[in-house]
Amino acid sequence: MAAYRAPVDDIRFLLLQVLRAPDALQAAPAFAEADAGLIVQVLEEAGKFVELAVAPLQAVGDTPGCRLVDGNVVTPPGFASAYRAFWQAGWPALACAPEDGGQGLPWVLEGVLYEMLSGANHGWTMAPGLLHGAYECLKHHGSEELKARYLAKVASGEWLATMCLTEAHAGSDLGLVRTQAVPQADGSHRIAGTKIFISGGAHDLTDNIVHLVLAREPGAPPGPKGLSLFLAPKVLADGARNAVVCERIEEKMGLHGSPTCVLRFDRATGWRVGEAGRGLAAMFVMMNAARLHVGLQGIGLLEAAWQLAHAYAQERTQMRAPGPLRGDGAADPIIRHPAVGRILDTERAWIDGLRVLAYRTGIELDLARHHSDAERRQAAQQWCSLVTPVLKAVATDAGFHGASRCLQVFGGHGYVKEWGIEQIVRDSRIAMIYEGTNEIQAIDLLVRKVLPDGGAAVGALLDRLAGELPGATPADAQVLRRFDALRAVTAQLVAASAGDPVLAYAAADDYLRAVGLALFGWAWRLVEATPGADAPRWSRPAGAARLRVLPEFEMRLQILRAQCAAPGHSSTAPA
Amino acid sequence: MAAYRAPVDDIRFLLLQVLRAPDALQAAPAFAEADAGLIVQVLEEAGKFVELAVAPLQAVGDTPGCRLVDGNVVTPPGFASAYRAFWQAGWPALACAPEDGGQGLPWVLEGVLYEMLSGANHGWTMAPGLLHGAYECLKHHGSEELKARYLAKVASGEWLATMCLTEAHAGSDLGLVRTQAVPQADGSHRIAGTKIFISGGAHDLTDNIVHLVLAREPGAPPGPKGLSLFLAPKVLADGARNAVVCERIEEKMGLHGSPTCVLRFDRATGWRVGEAGRGLAAMFVMMNAARLHVGLQGIGLLEAAWQLAHAYAQERTQMRAPGPLRGDGAADPIIRHPAVGRILDTERAWIDGLRVLAYRTGIELDLARHHSDAERRQAAQQWCSLVTPVLKAVATDAGFHGASRCLQVFGGHGYVKEWGIEQIVRDSRIAMIYEGTNEIQAIDLLVRKVLPDGGAAVGALLDRLAGELPGATPADAQVLRRFDALRAVTAQLVAASAGDPVLAYAAADDYLRAVGLALFGWAWRLVEATPGADAPRWSRPAGAARLRVLPEFEMRLQILRAQCAAPGHSSTAPA
Repeated sequence: MAAYRAPVDDIRFLLLQVLRAPDALQAAPAFAEADAGLIVQVLEEAGKFVELAVAPLQAVGDTPGCRLVDGNVVTPPGFASAYRAFWQAGWPALACAPEDGGQGLPWVLEGVLYEMLSGANHGWTMAPGLLHGAYECLKHHGSEELKARYLAKVASGEWLATMCLTEAHAGSDLGLVRTQAVPQADGSHRIAGTKIFISGGAHDLTDNIVHLVLAREPGAPPGPKGLSLFLAPKVLADGARNAVVCERIEEKMGLHGSPTCVLRFDRATGWRVGEAGRGLAAMFVMMNAARLHVGLQGIGLLEAAWQLAHAYAQERTQMRAPGPLRGDGAADPIIRHPAVGRILDTERAWIDGLRVLAYRTGIELDLARHHSDAERRQAAQQWCSLVTPVLKAVATDAGFHGASRCLQVFGGHGYVKEWGIEQIVRDSRIAMIYEGTNEIQAIDLLVRKVLPDGGAAVGALLDRLAGELPGATPADAQVLRRFDALRAVTAQLVAASAGDPVLAYAAADDYLRAVGLALFGWAWRLVEATPGADAPRWSRPAGAARLRVLPEFEMRLQILRAQCAAPGHSSTAPA
Repeated sequence: MAAYRAPVDDIRFLLLQVLRAPDALQAAPAFAEADAGLIVQVLEEAGKFVELAVAPLQAVGDTPGCRLVDGNVVTPPGFASAYRAFWQAGWPALACAPEDGGQGLPWVLEGVLYEMLSGANHGWTMAPGLLHGAYECLKHHGSEELKARYLAKVASGEWLATMCLTEAHAGSDLGLVRTQAVPQADGSHRIAGTKIFISGGAHDLTDNIVHLVLAREPGAPPGPKGLSLFLAPKVLADGARNAVVCERIEEKMGLHGSPTCVLRFDRATGWRVGEAGRGLAAMFVMMNAARLHVGLQGIGLLEAAWQLAHAYAQERTQMRAPGPLRGDGAADPIIRHPAVGRILDTERAWIDGLRVLAYRTGIELDLARHHSDAERRQAAQQWCSLVTPVLKAVATDAGFHGASRCLQVFGGHGYVKEWGIEQIVRDSRIAMIYEGTNEIQAIDLLVRKVLPDGGAAVGALLDRLAGELPGATPADAQVLRRFDALRAVTAQLVAASAGDPVLAYAAADDYLRAVGLALFGWAWRLVEATPGADAPRWSRPAGAARLRVLPEFEMRLQILRAQCAAPGHSSTAPA
């Protein structure tokens, strides 16, 4: 099995040449020093760390994976020392504020780092994956006392963190959460309840674990407005173990390198983070960043799958290729067979196009927080609000389905563990579910963000994207035609939804795909217009994007129009 | 985890009402007794056996699965006794000839039996899955001596059989096979070589295993024409063990209930089956049946996944549903949420439409062999030749992707083993690969069967299908429009391929999908025109087929037309 290679050159081209990230970032005073040299240096160092420390642990993450031994989680051999090297080298603090011990670099670089980490080893990467979110949550909502005790350790990654949201009966619907938090005379709370699906709820990577727990105080109203957020550490300040018990780790389809815990809080000691009743808001301060993170996992996993398939297709010989593709031997490398070449070109197209959208969204996340101009911050915020759910869903979908298409390149060998490709398929499947299922992303987009203002925000976004198109070529016109079609179908959905409260829910997935494909076409247009993009490395996937990916846009439009034309068609449920 | 329920009522409706199987089959003298009563009786008995004996072993098939202990494969607890009950009840002999101890029933009923078995327990079903093919191969090509020794045991299933084709360097390209078979003075051969991916190559289910081995005699020409077929049993007639060694069983993504063996033939004793140099032909006598079997696995697995998702969606409550779907509680069963309902309706549409095509193809298989009229046999043969690769690819694709969509209904719980749905996703993935990858099916269809006669055969098939349409309604016209579009694009491909030897290979997958969707639309038209199909059970998936499945047809046409318009676009391979 070939080990993951950090695709530093590809990423540099997209970040520096296509997106001109330094210009964009340096417009914010906080990132005045983020020039091309610094960005490249970070990319190269990150690439080295990923290749040397994390990628070699990919197989062992799957088998033996994590095990629960006497109530403690034992992570796979090598995980703990790699994690120690990770935090001691300062990687978790990359985008944390200098005053908290961080390096104050743009979030987009953290995003790229995590894309590479996820591709190299999704399971291992889950451990630090929630760290930055916990850091932001604590920084913005924690009391001074809590911050003094926990912020620096979470910023540096010396202590890892969890997000304890889900309960057995409350998954997508967190309003149903029942865990109780009873206030004590000393200002702390006693937390009682059982949380499930807690990634990294217990492990041997760090001395302490900082749990952020969604719970309900006595007398709080039912539903989401009664929820508050609490911090409950694994180890208390006096060194005693808190009453947090790992009851079980789940047997999962994949991602065995990440322990998914059932955590029982037995009147554990905790402290409220932020205001009472504002728990979801405190937790979701980093929602867009977290969702973008998950989208980047999809991209990273697809890159990893692509690398495996590409290497295999170059080496494996089988049958003679047709026409000018035919070599001299009894059999040709299967990369010469069009059935294989089309898979490699098409998945390459997905990776590159989605990278442009994801990195650009990372830059917008940075600008939304750090640009000096309020209007620009507002525009950046709107970008993130609209594009993040699209990216989360489309990129994780591409990650799983693309990994499966890459598996197909291996034939029967793809189904066997030793080649490593089936692990990626299994690992990647979860990303379509967690951090809000892809169906929830679609509802978030259409029902919560597009319909309420009659499509104004999405229209403004399309205007902005149109304004950034490189020229007035037929290819640009094609992108604009998609935008126009999207505007028209948005208007149709707005109109038809007025009399049909079900329509938007039934059409949301198709709408999200249509938006995603329109943006994807735009992203590839940016790539194609960049000097150097006429090399086969970029022109082949550009062709595959046009020929094999973008035709789905028309199909989605057709489905959306048909749904608008048949109001009420979804107004009953299956029996 | 809910156990698989045999969908006898659904299958009966499709087989008897929609396809009028008794009329079709009874036209062949061999099946004069295959009336509705007999068919229903077989379905019901098969359903009982599947539910009681095989379905309960699904989880244990995954864990512990099969293990190799001291060179012997130990199958999961319960597998052996279920298999004994299976053959002793006569199920393997269902479609074998009465003179061989069989019941002489139509093959289509065996197909339905195996669809149910695969849905209930894909791993277990792999064991008898190759039996009928081995029976036919032996019956048509074996010497009288070999038949006397092996045919009855293989027909009854008292002994299981394998197909030993693949070697490490020879998968899709069997012409590269190197295993040697050296003739001996007594008429036997000594077989030497190592075969991989041998399903059921070793196990504890039967006293003997009959291996059919593709090998090359000394001096045979290179390539496929030098291959002959040999029979080498695990246990020789004198009770001694033959020199066939199971070196390893593969660690796979799924299908752990079926041991995938590396078999080493150490100068094992074997006998040639059929003529020298005709090994592939002898092995592929049952190719269409074997491929249809695999397509039915896809359908069976999707049915199983659908049942799990449907049961979960009825019980799980989460959030309030929109508009008229909203109930009175704090949260509604998720089946009322359109994002879930659309998945259930759409996958139901895939199952039902593919069943019509698969069962009809099974009937044509029966008629191709047993109809008294040569012209009708010829038409049936043409049907099988064209439709089988389409069905194999489309149904296994639907099996895997549909199972994954059903997993999505479970949210995070879908990723956890205890719910059983992730096992189906893992198990189903192999069916897109074995028995000829889906890419090979596409090449078989377009390159070998459609282009050589300029599209005449596929045109004739479409004429025949058109002639069977129930009426002259707008829905029928829609089916015919698809047929016309398919004829036109076929002609385009024929013309453009004349100057571009690569085009057909690059376009084959899209073409197969287009044919599959045109047939799928036709199949649903048959269902809709059947009395009783206006019940929601059928009308809901009919709507989903139109709204959510069939629009892909236009997309494939667009992709095909674009490829025809850009000749030579695939004439280089990725680097």
